[in-house]
Amino acid sequence: MDSRNEATGRVEHTVGDNDAVIIVDHGSRRQESNLMLNEFVAMFKARTGYHIVEPAHMELAEPSIRDAFKLCVQEGAKRVIVSPFFLFPGRHWQQDIPSLVADASKEHSGISYVITAPLGLHGLLVDVVNDRINHCLSHVAGDADECTACAGTGKCRIYQP
Amino acid sequence: MDSRNEATGRVEHTVGDNDAVIIVDHGSRRQESNLMLNEFVAMFKARTGYHIVEPAHMELAEPSIRDAFKLCVQEGAKRVIVSPFFLFPGRHWQQDIPSLVADASKEHSGISYVITAPLGLHGLLVDVVNDRINHCLSHVAGDADECTACAGTGKCRIYQP
Repeated sequence: MDSRNEATGRVEHTVGDNDAVIIVDHGSRRQESNLMLNEFVAMFKARTGYHIVEPAHMELAEPSIRDAFKLCVQEGAKRVIVSPFFLFPGRHWQQDIPSLVADASKEHSGISYVITAPLGLHGLLVDVVNDRINHCLSHVAGDADECTACAGTGKCRIYQP
Repeated sequence: MDSRNEATGRVEHTVGDNDAVIIVDHGSRRQESNLMLNEFVAMFKARTGYHIVEPAHMELAEPSIRDAFKLCVQEGAKRVIVSPFFLFPGRHWQQDIPSLVADASKEHSGISYVITAPLGLHGLLVDVVNDRINHCLSHVAGDADECTACAGTGKCRIYQP
C-alpha cells in the first residue's frame, strides 16, 4: 500500500504500512532528556501500532534527522511523516526542522514527506497539564508516589518560605 | 478554604479556591509563540474552571515568573502551583525555574508553592501527537482545513523531492 491509493489515485489520510513517523525533539546535552524521547517513541509505537517509528534530535544529540530518515527508508518507508515534538511554533519548527528534513530527503529519491504541526493548542494537552498538577498535589499530600519525572529528586514537595 | 483543610489538618490534593496555577513556558523572541501561551492558559482556565491561572515566560518575554507570582497573590492565592510547560526535564526544569520561583516567593511571606513535573511521558500526549498527524494527513488529502498552527503558512503539504 502506497500513501497514494492505487484504485482512487487519492492520497491516503491515515498512517499506512508504507509510512514512517519520525518524532523529533530539540535534543539536549542531558542524556536523561534524550533517552526520554526514546521512551516516548516506544509508548507511541505501542499505542498506535504503527510499523515504523523513529526518534530524532534536531541538534546536540544523535540520532540526527538525517540518520532517522535513512533508517525509515531502509525499513521500507515510501513516505515519511515528521512530527516535531514541540509545544509551540518557533524558529525550530518554522525553519530549522524543515531545512534539515529537506536536506535529509535529498539522499532518497522518490520518498515524499510531510511535517506536522506543533502540539500546543490541543484540548487533550490541558488534560495532561491538569493531570500532572493533580498527581503532584496527591504526592505532596502523601496519597501518591512521585511520578517518573520526579522520582528520586525529592523536588516534588510544598515549599513554604 | 486553605490548601490545608482546617478540619483534618491535611494538605488538600486538588486545586482549591485559594490556589493559583502559573503555566510557565520558555519564552520566545517570536511574539506569536508567546501569545500562544495566553491562548493555552485561556483554554486551560475554561476547561478546568480554576479561579486563578496566569501565564509566565521563563525568559525573553513578559510576564516574568516574578510578575505572575505577584499577580496570583494579589488575586488572593495562598498557594501557587507552578506548572512548567515543558515536555522533558532539563536544566530549565531542574534549576532555572525552581530558582526563579524561589526568588519570586521571597517577596510574599506565607505563600507556599509547588512545582509540577514536565509533561513528556503521558499516555494522552501520544494521542495529541497522533491526532496532529492524522489531521495533517487529512489536510494534505484535501479532507480538512489547515490547523491553527499551520493556517496561512502553506507549509502543511506533501513534499515530493
